[in-house]
Amino acid sequence: MTQESPQSQSQSDADDGRNERHRARMARKKEVVDDKIAQAQRDCGVIVITTGNGKGKSSSGFGMVVRAMGHGMKTGVVQFIKGAIPTGEETFLRRFPSECEFYVMGEGYTWETQDRTRDIAKAEAAWEQARRMLRDPSFALVLFDELNIALKLGYLDVNTVIADLQARPAMQHVVITGRGAPQALIDAADTVTDMTPVKHAFAQGIRAQAGVEM
Amino acid sequence: MTQESPQSQSQSDADDGRNERHRARMARKKEVVDDKIAQAQRDCGVIVITTGNGKGKSSSGFGMVVRAMGHGMKTGVVQFIKGAIPTGEETFLRRFPSECEFYVMGEGYTWETQDRTRDIAKAEAAWEQARRMLRDPSFALVLFDELNIALKLGYLDVNTVIADLQARPAMQHVVITGRGAPQALIDAADTVTDMTPVKHAFAQGIRAQAGVEM
Repeated sequence: MTQESPQSQSQSDADDGRNERHRARMARKKEVVDDKIAQAQRDCGVIVITTGNGKGKSSSGFGMVVRAMGHGMKTGVVQFIKGAIPTGEETFLRRFPSECEFYVMGEGYTWETQDRTRDIAKAEAAWEQARRMLRDPSFALVLFDELNIALKLGYLDVNTVIADLQARPAMQHVVITGRGAPQALIDAADTVTDMTPVKHAFAQGIRAQAGVEM
Repeated sequence: MTQESPQSQSQSDADDGRNERHRARMARKKEVVDDKIAQAQRDCGVIVITTGNGKGKSSSGFGMVVRAMGHGMKTGVVQFIKGAIPTGEETFLRRFPSECEFYVMGEGYTWETQDRTRDIAKAEAAWEQARRMLRDPSFALVLFDELNIALKLGYLDVNTVIADLQARPAMQHVVITGRGAPQALIDAADTVTDMTPVKHAFAQGIRAQAGVEM
């Protein structure tokens, strides 16, 4: 249209008003965000925990691993409990051995093995790998995937784990995933998210899909 | 010790009891898990949404992208809202242009630009890229990072977005992240997780860390 009707004129005025209100709201938001940023100026290695029953705990850990790799940071992964079937994330990350060191505990989920003594020995061997990374400042970010389950089942001592975490290099980040994170570990962490399920495809008869769940 | 004391003998008995109870509990769990797996046998492309105020939404999306890449699946990423500063995930994934097509809307957060008209035009251009991927069955998994924010701010029409999602190839997976996912989108999704913050390093004066938050 080349000619403006009175209606479109008034609509244009209304749009201007909406844009102006948006601008004012975003300017206030920017002040709040800038102020928060000004207050948070400390750099240090952080402990991030993702727990809860929802989907996304391990995925978010692997997302942080590749994010760190994008910054040229050396990463390490120790997978607890999982491991009978190679996952997509394992296959992918093993392509970059100098950027990401990948250790899998093996033997699959504990309800497949049903052997507590063997599970404990495997968890302890996996923690030895984790401890080695925690003592090596060349690792900028390490992921201990499903560690919470090993702690919940009592396969590892939570106080030993926390002591090893606290003795790590000052700038090293640690990401820990799995359901049922113990309270003592949550207390020792900097950032904790509970992944709360709203709905899951599995409940609707859709099985685990490559790329999404494995 | 080569000789066993009565005490260690009784402790060994107790351990045997614990192991036996563990085995029985895990055998029951295996039955439940196996039964659930037997019921969930359908394969199809799923819509996964990660929303809420906690850390891990975008990270989990990028975790699924690399998980899919590990299975040799072609992936696509469209980032809405974010983009003023290149992130670790962008730098990393741009190394694999034949495995992951990466599109960033650019211009940074909306409270930086404070210009609603420009934000809408940019969101619409980004959705054009998303729609192109949704019409191309060569993409096995696509990530629309921070799309929920563009919907929440009214930059895109949720019904148009849902119609484009529902018209996609049957086996294509879609991951959508960002705070404030609209209810209509949640209703259209297969798996939805609310990432609930328990604590965050930011509140303790630690600023965003490379590899963890960006």
